Amino acid sequence: MTTLPNRAAVLMAPETIEIMDWHEPVCGPDDVVVDIAAVGVCGSDVHYFRHGRIGDTIADKPIVLGHEAAGTVTAIGANVRHLKIGDRVTLEPQRPCGHCEQCWSGAYNLCPDVEFMANPPYHGAFARRVVNPADFTFVVPDHLSFEEAALIEPLAVGFWAVDRLDLQPGTSVLITGAGPIGVLAAQMAAARGAGRIVISDINTARLDVLKRFPRFEAHNAAEDPQLENVEPVDYVIECSGAPGIVDRVLKRIRPRGGLALVGINVHGAGPIDLWPVMAKEITIVGVYRYASIYPRAIALAATGQVDLKALITHRFTLDESAAALGQSAKDMSSLKSVVSI
Amino acid sequence: MTTLPNRAAVLMAPETIEIMDWHEPVCGPDDVVVDIAAVGVCGSDVHYFRHGRIGDTIADKPIVLGHEAAGTVTAIGANVRHLKIGDRVTLEPQRPCGHCEQCWSGAYNLCPDVEFMANPPYHGAFARRVVNPADFTFVVPDHLSFEEAALIEPLAVGFWAVDRLDLQPGTSVLITGAGPIGVLAAQMAAARGAGRIVISDINTARLDVLKRFPRFEAHNAAEDPQLENVEPVDYVIECSGAPGIVDRVLKRIRPRGGLALVGINVHGAGPIDLWPVMAKEITIVGVYRYASIYPRAIALAATGQVDLKALITHRFTLDESAAALGQSAKDMSSLKSVVSI
Amino acid sequence: MTTLPNRAAVLMAPETIEIMDWHEPVCGPDDVVVDIAAVGVCGSDVHYFRHGRIGDTIADKPIVLGHEAAGTVTAIGANVRHLKIGDRVTLEPQRPCGHCEQCWSGAYNLCPDVEFMANPPYHGAFARRVVNPADFTFVVPDHLSFEEAALIEPLAVGFWAVDRLDLQPGTSVLITGAGPIGVLAAQMAAARGAGRIVISDINTARLDVLKRFPRFEAHNAAEDPQLENVEPVDYVIECSGAPGIVDRVLKRIRPRGGLALVGINVHGAGPIDLWPVMAKEITIVGVYRYASIYPRAIALAATGQVDLKALITHRFTLDESAAALGQSAKDMSSLKSVVSI
Amino acid sequence: MTTLPNRAAVLMAPETIEIMDWHEPVCGPDDVVVDIAAVGVCGSDVHYFRHGRIGDTIADKPIVLGHEAAGTVTAIGANVRHLKIGDRVTLEPQRPCGHCEQCWSGAYNLCPDVEFMANPPYHGAFARRVVNPADFTFVVPDHLSFEEAALIEPLAVGFWAVDRLDLQPGTSVLITGAGPIGVLAAQMAAARGAGRIVISDINTARLDVLKRFPRFEAHNAAEDPQLENVEPVDYVIECSGAPGIVDRVLKRIRPRGGLALVGINVHGAGPIDLWPVMAKEITIVGVYRYASIYPRAIALAATGQVDLKALITHRFTLDESAAALGQSAKDMSSLKSVVSI
Repeated sequence: MTTLPNRAAVLMAPETIEIMDWHEPVCGPDDVVVDIAAVGVCGSDVHYFRHGRIGDTIADKPIVLGHEAAGTVTAIGANVRHLKIGDRVTLEPQRPCGHCEQCWSGAYNLCPDVEFMANPPYHGAFARRVVNPADFTFVVPDHLSFEEAALIEPLAVGFWAVDRLDLQPGTSVLITGAGPIGVLAAQMAAARGAGRIVISDINTARLDVLKRFPRFEAHNAAEDPQLENVEPVDYVIECSGAPGIVDRVLKRIRPRGGLALVGINVHGAGPIDLWPVMAKEITIVGVYRYASIYPRAIALAATGQVDLKALITHRFTLDESAAALGQSAKDMSSLKSVVSI
Repeated sequence: MTTLPNRAAVLMAPETIEIMDWHEPVCGPDDVVVDIAAVGVCGSDVHYFRHGRIGDTIADKPIVLGHEAAGTVTAIGANVRHLKIGDRVTLEPQRPCGHCEQCWSGAYNLCPDVEFMANPPYHGAFARRVVNPADFTFVVPDHLSFEEAALIEPLAVGFWAVDRLDLQPGTSVLITGAGPIGVLAAQMAAARGAGRIVISDINTARLDVLKRFPRFEAHNAAEDPQLENVEPVDYVIECSGAPGIVDRVLKRIRPRGGLALVGINVHGAGPIDLWPVMAKEITIVGVYRYASIYPRAIALAATGQVDLKALITHRFTLDESAAALGQSAKDMSSLKSVVSI
Repeated sequence: MTTLPNRAAVLMAPETIEIMDWHEPVCGPDDVVVDIAAVGVCGSDVHYFRHGRIGDTIADKPIVLGHEAAGTVTAIGANVRHLKIGDRVTLEPQRPCGHCEQCWSGAYNLCPDVEFMANPPYHGAFARRVVNPADFTFVVPDHLSFEEAALIEPLAVGFWAVDRLDLQPGTSVLITGAGPIGVLAAQMAAARGAGRIVISDINTARLDVLKRFPRFEAHNAAEDPQLENVEPVDYVIECSGAPGIVDRVLKRIRPRGGLALVGINVHGAGPIDLWPVMAKEITIVGVYRYASIYPRAIALAATGQVDLKALITHRFTLDESAAALGQSAKDMSSLKSVVSI
Repeated sequence: MTTLPNRAAVLMAPETIEIMDWHEPVCGPDDVVVDIAAVGVCGSDVHYFRHGRIGDTIADKPIVLGHEAAGTVTAIGANVRHLKIGDRVTLEPQRPCGHCEQCWSGAYNLCPDVEFMANPPYHGAFARRVVNPADFTFVVPDHLSFEEAALIEPLAVGFWAVDRLDLQPGTSVLITGAGPIGVLAAQMAAARGAGRIVISDINTARLDVLKRFPRFEAHNAAEDPQLENVEPVDYVIECSGAPGIVDRVLKRIRPRGGLALVGINVHGAGPIDLWPVMAKEITIVGVYRYASIYPRAIALAATGQVDLKALITHRFTLDESAAALGQSAKDMSSLKSVVSI
């Protein structure tokens, strides 16, 4: 029986984290309660930590951040059949309504009423215990660590990006933005059999971290902002959100190629010359979180086709959550920080 | 035996057409010679007529315009098996190289060496006789007139647009731009089973012409430039090339919807907010001419599922070619002019 | 307030229908109660009526048949927002679990726990009032009659078949089996823009009924069992379940063509030569009911692109249910019988 | 200047190979002549060697076998631009007509007039020099050996199989038949990110060879002919051609799964129960050679994502061609024999 209070790292105001006793999660009939073991720090967590908002979504009340989480099931709801207490699990951090057109057609990531962890007003996983829908809680094999299991979440974003592109084996790919999502998208491109894989960034420290991934070529966008040294590729996965980047990458895409937009997470992308889209019949796809990806993402991690451990550059405890969030914001040699709980 | 000289309407300089005796076409072993009966006037013809260029493609020498053509086969090359003299045919006006990656993979419309009729320096069909590759010359059924057969070409553009979108039956569609391509894209949307079909234009005369198509709702973009009165749709087919139109239509597309770009035929489309593409996982596809469409487009015309006759608002003779080109440029009640030869 | 008892036509044993007072439906929080106005008779209803079973699914207790139903909402559950009392609706007769992998990925028709109306032990709609999940209850426009609204259900089967085939406009299609599903699949092929549409059957009375659909060519399979007079087609939609039919139609399909299996509803299809599948790279797809089709099927009926009224050859009252079921079994000139309630 | 006579291994009659001076290849304007360095032995070569025919295709005149070939360009036709003398190349052994509907739509493997090497009456590559269309001759990187380059051909078959299936990462796959095509299909499944990969065969020697591929689970179909010990999979790739195998594997496929038919190379596959295809909405695709695959297959080999060397179990010289063909027929521990020329 769990008796410890539910400690959590709570964002009270920008740059202000308090470690405090938090509400005990209430387990609904289709839910499970998970004792959290590891939580990855996402760029969106960092953004809320620093600015208290992302675009129009405002953290105007105390909020628990963190949505890349894994742990152990400690309670199950009355209707739950496929999980049991003690299961080692990773959490898909969304709770769609289950009743709308999007939910019934497999596009539940676009459910207008989806509740997404650590997206205000919904709380996240920098806490001892959280509740999650059982349908979105997945057992991981024993040989995957909790840290790796937590990183199934950002892997799912990269997975979904190559899925939306329908990336074909033996093709060439450029990923713009060498953050964790960019690196995981690149790993997914490799897992789908891409040939040449180039990752571009303006930050030298970030590019240095790439050396741990021998399949990827690093491209320094600070020295070649127009990407003129990048030979045209079949696909681009845009993970940087850099101003003007879409206009520039369209010129580097081959006929019938594709562009996935992952990094455009605020309004506005500047002027875009669409002539290349027409003349080369490029397909552009938006990528918003993911849907129906977790079991297959786990299978890839379990068979060693993606290396989640290689992403982790820094580790923290729950008490160090503020440091974890602050460090990720400032240190470009940081790829992925994980908080143990 | 044809003995008449090969009369043609030749663009000598902007706004200057001369009717003159023209080179006799040379029939290669894989070609046919076609006695032209009818040629539709396309917006690109009008643009060359008025400005002598489209973007970087310049008509710096005398050129025969016209690429929407039908007629009768009068000579066949040595290797041609599937056509015979006397066949009533429509011409697909492209001659791809047949040897590149694009040609062998079914994307011959993107062949870097494709020769497209009436695209300088390649001549078009405002002439008594033209040569065309036999592979791109298609027999039409007797009950299709030559005028209708000529309009298979713009129909193919609309066909390809809905094909690239993979438009599904029972969905809703907005077409921006009520010119011939817009109307044919709308007809193709109807032929694929679209439910609600809205066509938007800023020109009242154009919108009036739409009354002959009972399935379409007309939307006056002059009165509602932000398209706020258009209920969100599953697909948009952009055929106007209007400044800022892409940014505006993205706001009117439903989750997982699609946007086909048909009308962006010069560089530059202005600032575009890509957030709707991401948040709604919209797919944007470029549409460049068409490939492998003609036999199926003919089948749709032959079974009465599209009405090509209803497009024709004006008729001219070869001698009146200059008037045909000039009239289409100025008269917005003109939908499609056809020149008889 | 509805006060009349809930009369229903109950199958007590093969060939034995009793009209009796039936359980009052219980409206769950996500359900609605519908006053049934019209119910179509399906071949599966007839099969249960005659044999008390279909394959391994046995009607071993009294059961209410009928799953093609429309009516008026008379009660709504506490959570229901998009429907109100008085709405004229059609019923999608399935209740998936909403929690499994199939449900969350848009394949809810393959949910292992789906409850399908009139599929023992689940009751159907030959009754004054039934309960249905609100998510699967769809408002129909006023100009669609209840009879037409009831036939959205078999239309959805045909819709799903052409959807699974990804049937392209301007292609040719052979439908084997001229029953209601065959005719609706043919109508859907027409709505998606198919060119040549052939329907084949061995029954002359059935073929005679086809004369009311001018787009379709009738093929008499009694006179040409090997289908040798059918020019090869791009797609076949198999709706007959006839022995040996799959082997025969594979020979009539063009390269890269497709075959949808709709009519194979019991085990066993006899020897099949798969060489044509390989040598022509044919794609074969199974079709099992439908998923996420109703709103778009309603749109097609509402815009007149399919003609559901033309299917109805016989009409009955609830009290005549036994006659309705018996007549459909014996009279091949019957295409679709509808029971008014 | 090549002056040596063009030695070739010629099949004169079943089981009878003569090494003789052969016709000098004639290089057409769009062709190249290749000095052959290595040729893989395919099962079809072995079949012609033993039986003088495959189905209705009869080797009734002397024929040079071999269609898995690599070498060095020694002459180029007048129109060839992308190759030069001295290029190390692999040969795609098909010569489509380039003019039919299949060729222009990217389905040139289904061209009715395609000439395929070593498919009577077209000669193959067990010879010093052969002519090949330049469009179907591809440069390989220096670090790929000629042996590996020759095996791009069977790799392309496996590549095409997973392409036709649109195999998704993280899924499970069963390959029936552990011959070279089966193993290469399995490698391609791995390269596309498949999770669990099972290969089944009845032959113990063949299963032993699989131990060199650590990602694959071997299944002994001799001990479990009904495949009951194989947990259901998302896809099956049938490469065995074994009687009754299709009927058996359909029972092991998960809902919405797929089956690729690669191994059915003669007429007849016995009775098949199609109910699982319907009830689980399985998709079955035929796989016939390949189209537009070589450049991407080379990229996979070049980046080490497939291991072609691991397939080679036996090596022979041109003079030993008869032994090479005979050995592959009898020795089940043989996976792939390669002939050096």
